[in-house]
Amino acid sequence: MMLKAILVISDGMADRLIKELDWKTPLEAAQKPSLNQIAKTGICGILDPISPGVPPGSDTATLALLGYDALKVYSGRGALEALGSGVNVLPGDVAFRCNFATANEKGVVLDRRAGRIANEDATKLAGSLQKIKLKKPANAEFLFRNTIQHRTVLSIRGPKLSIAVSNSDPGKNGEKPQEIKPLDNTSEAKLTARIVNDLLHDFHKTLRNHPVNVERAKHDLPQANTVLCRGAGTIPNIKPLSQVFGIRATCIAAAPLVKGVCKAAGIRIVDVKGATGTPQTNYMAKAKAIVQALKNSDFALLHVKAADVVSHDGKARQKVEVIEKIDDMLGYLLDHVDLGSTYLAVTADHTTSIVTGNHEGDPVPIAITGPYIRCDSVMEYDERSCAKGGLNRIRGVDLMPILMNLIGKTGKFGA
Amino acid sequence: MMLKAILVISDGMADRLIKELDWKTPLEAAQKPSLNQIAKTGICGILDPISPGVPPGSDTATLALLGYDALKVYSGRGALEALGSGVNVLPGDVAFRCNFATANEKGVVLDRRAGRIANEDATKLAGSLQKIKLKKPANAEFLFRNTIQHRTVLSIRGPKLSIAVSNSDPGKNGEKPQEIKPLDNTSEAKLTARIVNDLLHDFHKTLRNHPVNVERAKHDLPQANTVLCRGAGTIPNIKPLSQVFGIRATCIAAAPLVKGVCKAAGIRIVDVKGATGTPQTNYMAKAKAIVQALKNSDFALLHVKAADVVSHDGKARQKVEVIEKIDDMLGYLLDHVDLGSTYLAVTADHTTSIVTGNHEGDPVPIAITGPYIRCDSVMEYDERSCAKGGLNRIRGVDLMPILMNLIGKTGKFGA
Repeated sequence: MMLKAILVISDGMADRLIKELDWKTPLEAAQKPSLNQIAKTGICGILDPISPGVPPGSDTATLALLGYDALKVYSGRGALEALGSGVNVLPGDVAFRCNFATANEKGVVLDRRAGRIANEDATKLAGSLQKIKLKKPANAEFLFRNTIQHRTVLSIRGPKLSIAVSNSDPGKNGEKPQEIKPLDNTSEAKLTARIVNDLLHDFHKTLRNHPVNVERAKHDLPQANTVLCRGAGTIPNIKPLSQVFGIRATCIAAAPLVKGVCKAAGIRIVDVKGATGTPQTNYMAKAKAIVQALKNSDFALLHVKAADVVSHDGKARQKVEVIEKIDDMLGYLLDHVDLGSTYLAVTADHTTSIVTGNHEGDPVPIAITGPYIRCDSVMEYDERSCAKGGLNRIRGVDLMPILMNLIGKTGKFGA
Repeated sequence: MMLKAILVISDGMADRLIKELDWKTPLEAAQKPSLNQIAKTGICGILDPISPGVPPGSDTATLALLGYDALKVYSGRGALEALGSGVNVLPGDVAFRCNFATANEKGVVLDRRAGRIANEDATKLAGSLQKIKLKKPANAEFLFRNTIQHRTVLSIRGPKLSIAVSNSDPGKNGEKPQEIKPLDNTSEAKLTARIVNDLLHDFHKTLRNHPVNVERAKHDLPQANTVLCRGAGTIPNIKPLSQVFGIRATCIAAAPLVKGVCKAAGIRIVDVKGATGTPQTNYMAKAKAIVQALKNSDFALLHVKAADVVSHDGKARQKVEVIEKIDDMLGYLLDHVDLGSTYLAVTADHTTSIVTGNHEGDPVPIAITGPYIRCDSVMEYDERSCAKGGLNRIRGVDLMPILMNLIGKTGKFGA
């Protein structure tokens, strides 16, 4: 019998107790028959994505949930997001996540997203910026690409570079962009900072009087006259999952950062029409696609961004609604997957608190159902119920070995 | 008061849910009043021998349960098994676990165990092989010894050698033995591979027309005309337990691999008449011996192989029966050990699944009873009940510090 595993990661789904929900978590407040079914028939627990108290990003948490030691291999966000946006990043390239932004005549940032500039305008601006020539060093080149709205990617290739450089993005409106600084004493970090500072200077010169911005000014739209950079990163030096566990793996995700992690892990990515990474995503299309994908995979990862989005916006009731839609999606999986030969695991990549609006370091619930599993007495899938489960408390990095062991893909250590 | 500790390791006792046992584990299905007594009066938990999802061998798991970091110190199976078989292996020697096997005229292995050749025949053959002279290098020598039936040990001593070499044993019948290959680029690995390949070649020449095989052919017995090697290993570089914790330690075990680990850890080994490492072992003789051994020890390890043997054979009912015999054995301990001054811990070295027939990466139950311990509300000793215990989920490497702390043998870290 060919055993397989599906891992569903609901981004930011875990939470703390919320007054508006009668001091329940959104998971506790939601109607969630399918999640409960998975908990009832499976083994449950809580999971620290990195380690207790550490709030992870979706990049580090996904790396960990795929079995990599994120503390050792994580090498910044930029290259992962670029990869996930379809930008061709090679090992050694240093990439940044960038925004088109609006600054006033003194250079103070008024809008970090340039009024969420339309893709059409952003594409024209990015095209003009890509034509700029890097002056020095002669063997360096860059790639600048817009993805969705104000979001762009800058990737530098050439001499020996470093990710040990600071951000130019001040992180909030009302401040000037910062000069990018080397964060260590290496010549690589100094060179990287200089290249990007020079380039941003040239970008601003081009953007200032760009016809697109002249036109936007006429229509009272915020001008995209500044580029803000953050999250310098390279592709992490990791073995693909096919080598680590000898598996064929497929991922369905809309969020570029998560897609980038999956690409770095050598996972085949299936794009699904209507999967948007928003609360309005087509949940059912993703469910159908994962059932299809599993036919020629040993392991399929289904990532849903929606719960994180509403959490950052502090919307408790919407988070409950998103969870109920995810529950419907899981219902489809329970109906259409052969649970006699397939393990189904559901977790979150981190806690995103409705109250703080931030990723938090609390553990997340985890449940695994499937054949011969040591099911426990947990009847509901939520943060506090799962804490009583048979898995007790595990770490993100432990989940893949557990799933791979269940489907017979781990080698014995010793004799 | 002199505090002492007994650790009982029941090899492969943990399991998954089994249909034949009404979806219980063998531990759950067994009548086990003594195990339950230990759980009831003690503190329980689950234990990952190495880490979650990782299926350990008995060698790596025993190293971990004795408090060593197996991921760091494990150096192959061969030397441990040789040590445990009474072969004098020194640091630096590279030893292999070998089998006498039967091959046809084309060299294809027909029986990896040469019909489980009798000790008498194996001893004669091994004696002849030991007389062969290693041609080169001049400063190398070897030791070849048969242990039980087809099982033999080959140990190489001399120049700088390496354990980074592959097996000649194809692992199943119907294939030819493989050439031993260096697994890295070092001159040590290349030299080791060459020495063993040359030696195996000479072994086969001697075995082919050996009088013992001529005689076996006459009686239609499979000829032991081939030697298969696997598991290159050296003695791990570890401090003896007497140095780590300042204790006098004794072990009772029949399985050579486990005895080897104990020897490497400087543990005194007591041989017990009737202890065979099989389901027919004399459980009660082992129990009596451990009670005796504890008189002049601080720590006594009792290893029972039987549950693993029946698990590999996929025999669910027999596994239940073995567990019930182990329970009787533990009953003797409960009756004859002073539990006012002795801690008694019971665990398994790994899960061996009746369904897959393999070592699996699921955690194992652990219970510790003894004076002043923080006993919990767990009433039964099994995988799922113990998961609700006061120890929660620990790792193999944590168990010895816990036991040694209970008997006052751990030094304070800090002031």
